[in-house]
Amino acid sequence: MGSRPTLASLAGQLGVSRQTISNAINAPERVSPPTLERVKELIAASGYRPNSAARQLRTRRSRNLGYRLFPSADGINGAVMDRFLHALTERLYEHGYRVTVFAVPNDDAEIEAYEELLETADLDGFILADTRPDDPRTSWLLDRGVPFVTFGRPWTADRSSPHSWVDVDGRAGTAEATNYLLSQGHRQIGFVGWPEGKDLPGGRPAGYELGRDRMEGWKGALSPHLEPRELERLFVGVPDRIRDGAAAALTLLGNGATAFVCASDSLALGASEQLRAVFPDKPPAVIGFDDTPVAAAVGMSSVSQPVEWVAEEIVGIIRTTLDGPATQTKAPQHLLLPPRLVLRDGGGPLATTPAG
Amino acid sequence: MGSRPTLASLAGQLGVSRQTISNAINAPERVSPPTLERVKELIAASGYRPNSAARQLRTRRSRNLGYRLFPSADGINGAVMDRFLHALTERLYEHGYRVTVFAVPNDDAEIEAYEELLETADLDGFILADTRPDDPRTSWLLDRGVPFVTFGRPWTADRSSPHSWVDVDGRAGTAEATNYLLSQGHRQIGFVGWPEGKDLPGGRPAGYELGRDRMEGWKGALSPHLEPRELERLFVGVPDRIRDGAAAALTLLGNGATAFVCASDSLALGASEQLRAVFPDKPPAVIGFDDTPVAAAVGMSSVSQPVEWVAEEIVGIIRTTLDGPATQTKAPQHLLLPPRLVLRDGGGPLATTPAG
Repeated sequence: MGSRPTLASLAGQLGVSRQTISNAINAPERVSPPTLERVKELIAASGYRPNSAARQLRTRRSRNLGYRLFPSADGINGAVMDRFLHALTERLYEHGYRVTVFAVPNDDAEIEAYEELLETADLDGFILADTRPDDPRTSWLLDRGVPFVTFGRPWTADRSSPHSWVDVDGRAGTAEATNYLLSQGHRQIGFVGWPEGKDLPGGRPAGYELGRDRMEGWKGALSPHLEPRELERLFVGVPDRIRDGAAAALTLLGNGATAFVCASDSLALGASEQLRAVFPDKPPAVIGFDDTPVAAAVGMSSVSQPVEWVAEEIVGIIRTTLDGPATQTKAPQHLLLPPRLVLRDGGGPLATTPAG
Repeated sequence: MGSRPTLASLAGQLGVSRQTISNAINAPERVSPPTLERVKELIAASGYRPNSAARQLRTRRSRNLGYRLFPSADGINGAVMDRFLHALTERLYEHGYRVTVFAVPNDDAEIEAYEELLETADLDGFILADTRPDDPRTSWLLDRGVPFVTFGRPWTADRSSPHSWVDVDGRAGTAEATNYLLSQGHRQIGFVGWPEGKDLPGGRPAGYELGRDRMEGWKGALSPHLEPRELERLFVGVPDRIRDGAAAALTLLGNGATAFVCASDSLALGASEQLRAVFPDKPPAVIGFDDTPVAAAVGMSSVSQPVEWVAEEIVGIIRTTLDGPATQTKAPQHLLLPPRLVLRDGGGPLATTPAG
């Protein structure tokens, strides 16, 4: 509020310049000892905490990071990225960083935006989401030495990368979902995933690797129990829309599936509603991915990405990179975090029982 | 990309300073005629478009606006505010503005953030959401002459305000929903709203006025048809959670309601699932508010706020305020936009028929 001390109010009270106050905090050797003493006393009495302006004067950093907002395809799967932005913004703000968001239609425009933002907004770096193999955006930033961290691995064979990244182990999530259904006695567990390389989530170029990763978790967990031919009949790849999830569930049902793991909550919701129509009394188990508000709302089980944890780790890396002592080793960090299976047996009056 | 001309690349090609290029664009009288000619030719040949850096040099503005991210209570109703942020960011970016987002726990912290951001980030102004009567944030900004526009009216009796605002006419939305149900033959139309003054959406201090406004749309449309005593029995105010919507629907059902209008999609989803459990073959009509992804996903009718239109109008006001000629009248703009009733008769295999 108005009473919170600032560089300016302290300067006013002592009749000195803001720079003098800043120097007293950050470069005390530049301030005469009597003035330094007065500033210190006033700071102690006022409860002033040096804010980012003071830190900025010291570090010559803007403490401002860029982040591209993606449009969220059907508004369901996008919820997880909005949760990420909220968590990221909260964590960064606690450490005196701000986030500049921008919306652009494609990767070329995103790179143009980097250039413009670096030139005009003096950004310290970027947080990127939706990584893909041979990502032109990360190459551009690496070439120019701009600090950045990605939410998403680089999708190289060995996960190596010259830059830091934090990601969620989607494969482990669908494996856990499949193992849970196996423990409930299911063997014919269908997987509703995305198609090979096109019509991917939101029509974005990212997604193929993500979908394959999630599919492989299901396949790995199920392959000790089924023949490859059976596995093939239990996979359907469709565009990431509710109605396609419904159609895919019918196909898999025809192929003998008794339970379903899906690559997204959009697909799972379609599958779940469709199966509820066919089996109103006891619909087969469906497990989605991303634990969106829709999943919680309709009582559907889902694999939850720990995006708050991802944000926390990204902020840790950013702080080490930008605020750490120059002598500190700043090797790229690569973190793959485990997701968590959220089981629901309904919660609403019309339950979708996960055990089928 | 690397080939896109910038102030710096143009300056490099001509062997002049960036300031010279900028002057040629914004203050040609300061550049010698031969240099001006060379710059103009190069600009024409290169397809250079003056970017925000150039404009910033001219206008001494940062072209950077602040926006507080609210945490989204149950993740359902919050979707509309995330849609607003996406639309706002896209529109602002088209006009060379950036958005700095920050997350703070309360109004006091929001005002502290204003102070800090104005001091350190050189923001041009703010976009505020979740307005309330006697809003301390708008007073603070008005006192200091900081430009801002609110998404949300000031909730004064006559809607007057010394600042610009854009809002959605929630009352018109619930009135339209109620009138639709009346046209379908219903008379006993229940309203599931929020309680008087506490436990409001997300526990935020805003919400009471919003809830009353939505309730009054229902009341106004229904009062020509029912006695005041009947109206009273058809209103229930509960916290904005799915399970409370379910319980409220049962109460209203007991009071004779045959169709339901709700103040939010969270409440409507609870009501809808509950009614589907009681009447699996033909559940009564439920109309929610905000047309969230959840409503679309489960095939529920809902009142849609035109947040993209709101964003468009806010950006128009911001541009007039910050970019318009100084001579232009900049009276505060007050815009109340109409919402739209989105009717769904299912869409999924288990239909909730809006006509009851």
